[in-house]
Amino acid sequence: MTNLNPSDKALVPFVSVDQMMKLIHHIGVEDMLRGLAEYIEADFKRWELFDKTPRVASHSEKGVIELMPTSDGDVYGFKYVNGHPDNTKDGFQTVTAFGLLANVNNGYPVLLTEMTILTALRTAATSAVVARLLAPKGAHVMAMIGNGAQSEFQSLAMKAICGVDEVRLYDIDRAATAKCARNLAGHGIKVVECDTAEDAIMGAQIITTCTADKQYATILTDNMVGSGVHINAIGGDCPGKTELAPAILHRSDIFVEFPEQTRIEGEIQQLDADHAVTEIWQVLTGQAEGRRSAEQITLFDSVGFAIEDFSALRYVRDQIAETGLFQPLDLLADPDDPRDLFGMLQRAG
Amino acid sequence: MTNLNPSDKALVPFVSVDQMMKLIHHIGVEDMLRGLAEYIEADFKRWELFDKTPRVASHSEKGVIELMPTSDGDVYGFKYVNGHPDNTKDGFQTVTAFGLLANVNNGYPVLLTEMTILTALRTAATSAVVARLLAPKGAHVMAMIGNGAQSEFQSLAMKAICGVDEVRLYDIDRAATAKCARNLAGHGIKVVECDTAEDAIMGAQIITTCTADKQYATILTDNMVGSGVHINAIGGDCPGKTELAPAILHRSDIFVEFPEQTRIEGEIQQLDADHAVTEIWQVLTGQAEGRRSAEQITLFDSVGFAIEDFSALRYVRDQIAETGLFQPLDLLADPDDPRDLFGMLQRAG
Repeated sequence: MTNLNPSDKALVPFVSVDQMMKLIHHIGVEDMLRGLAEYIEADFKRWELFDKTPRVASHSEKGVIELMPTSDGDVYGFKYVNGHPDNTKDGFQTVTAFGLLANVNNGYPVLLTEMTILTALRTAATSAVVARLLAPKGAHVMAMIGNGAQSEFQSLAMKAICGVDEVRLYDIDRAATAKCARNLAGHGIKVVECDTAEDAIMGAQIITTCTADKQYATILTDNMVGSGVHINAIGGDCPGKTELAPAILHRSDIFVEFPEQTRIEGEIQQLDADHAVTEIWQVLTGQAEGRRSAEQITLFDSVGFAIEDFSALRYVRDQIAETGLFQPLDLLADPDDPRDLFGMLQRAG
Repeated sequence: MTNLNPSDKALVPFVSVDQMMKLIHHIGVEDMLRGLAEYIEADFKRWELFDKTPRVASHSEKGVIELMPTSDGDVYGFKYVNGHPDNTKDGFQTVTAFGLLANVNNGYPVLLTEMTILTALRTAATSAVVARLLAPKGAHVMAMIGNGAQSEFQSLAMKAICGVDEVRLYDIDRAATAKCARNLAGHGIKVVECDTAEDAIMGAQIITTCTADKQYATILTDNMVGSGVHINAIGGDCPGKTELAPAILHRSDIFVEFPEQTRIEGEIQQLDADHAVTEIWQVLTGQAEGRRSAEQITLFDSVGFAIEDFSALRYVRDQIAETGLFQPLDLLADPDDPRDLFGMLQRAG
């Protein structure tokens, strides 16, 4: 029997950028952030199960291309992601990404998807999972410093998952702040455009920093940060790129995803290699303490870890069957007789 | 300006299995093998230029999933490939693969393609590049031991690139041999079906072994191998999987792709870690000697290296523009303003 059409085994569900946007609108962005947060929290709670290969980076003068694989023993996932700070000058994205899930038992991919938008969502959902855990009781005002591509997602995740009802925006580029405010209008969250970082921080219990310069920057200085806040530091995420003055780090209790990676990429690259940090997953499982007092400064030194992408890929896989928001991609050769690849090729001629 | 259609920057050329088969028929399988051989030889000759990350493997009880990245500084490529020996029992392929090329300067992918068929072609083309370099003068008969998915590709590559005009087939499964012979009929090469490995080797100057068991097997014993032959050992390609008796290795001069990888995965995992081997690229550039005498046994301990996939990806990239045998894939989010990812999402609603 010769079947020239690809079989089901040959086809991998592919979620395009357009289909990802449709999926988000179908589910609703806040519901999707909540859904992602559930999957991320579930995977953090079974942290020890995962194969935690360090990301595989290929560096060049202009930026980096990385592969971030992980596996829970049943499913394998990886994300391809680039980071090229100068890209925006040429109208390209600083970061683009796609990802793949595969069945560990036979190695066959089960999902290929855009991940530029999905990464923005999972980063925000992760921030909110951690803020819910560490922010002071009753926190409802967030300062959002850096109003680029991640800022709206952060704001809505903090609203959907932590009950934040006011965001105070600041960016050195006023147009970015205006863009963020415009985009958040009508989303049921009070938006205040601020002229200075100091102004943005006024009355905020959560301070999120997310700026993009590839350099040792000081977005927050020591005197700006009062006691009792939760700092959600997103932007310091590769060697040579940090946002916070070291003095703030010394006053804070620092929480991280995966210390081996954060010590290289995060804010704590500014500290000694043995500076004490707490792993988020251990707080979630009750093995480590989170916030201990109302005065304590908690700091989430977020760099993004493969398991968060894995959670996001799992979430998307579980949504697409019902919605049909994917297209079958003829990615895998599947001859009737696996030993007869050449025969399949020959018959296609 | 709001453009809801994906821009050119968002679209990545994708070559499906069907399109790859059409491309091969359009070019002709032997011409394509010759073309791939040219690209592979060119890349081997600039070997030192490449970023040679070891492959990133995720092992499980049933098999392995690997990412094989490399870069020449201008272009970055990686292959996803699985190896699951038991897959054929369930009608799945032992090995499936896909690959990607990206622009190093901005990190944007420029090609996504099936690589199951392409890997079969590049493996055969690599074998032939090496056999042309090392086989005894006037070699024109090849023994092909193991008549699975790779056997026809090996036979045609040796014909197209090395002038082999007779292949002598042997497999423990007679049906595999019959399948291979049937597929090679009409390709201008004399095909002899043999009852034993000893019979297959009679009069052959090139001996190719390509069997699939994940175990220490002995496809060739010492007394079967006479002087002056070139052995092209394909099947020993992961830890615990070899095909040749150690005594043969000790009588041979051994040539490898990348010693660091071959010592773990190749036939030479049976030898001391400091056993002398010669790197193929050094023979191609004249920095090391190839065959020195008619009596010498040369052995290519082939495991497959990322640079060969990179060459194959470059070759396909250079063919598809003219033939149109690809489809544009909406893989990358590309907002008009890179900082306004959320705005793009919102407008799509």
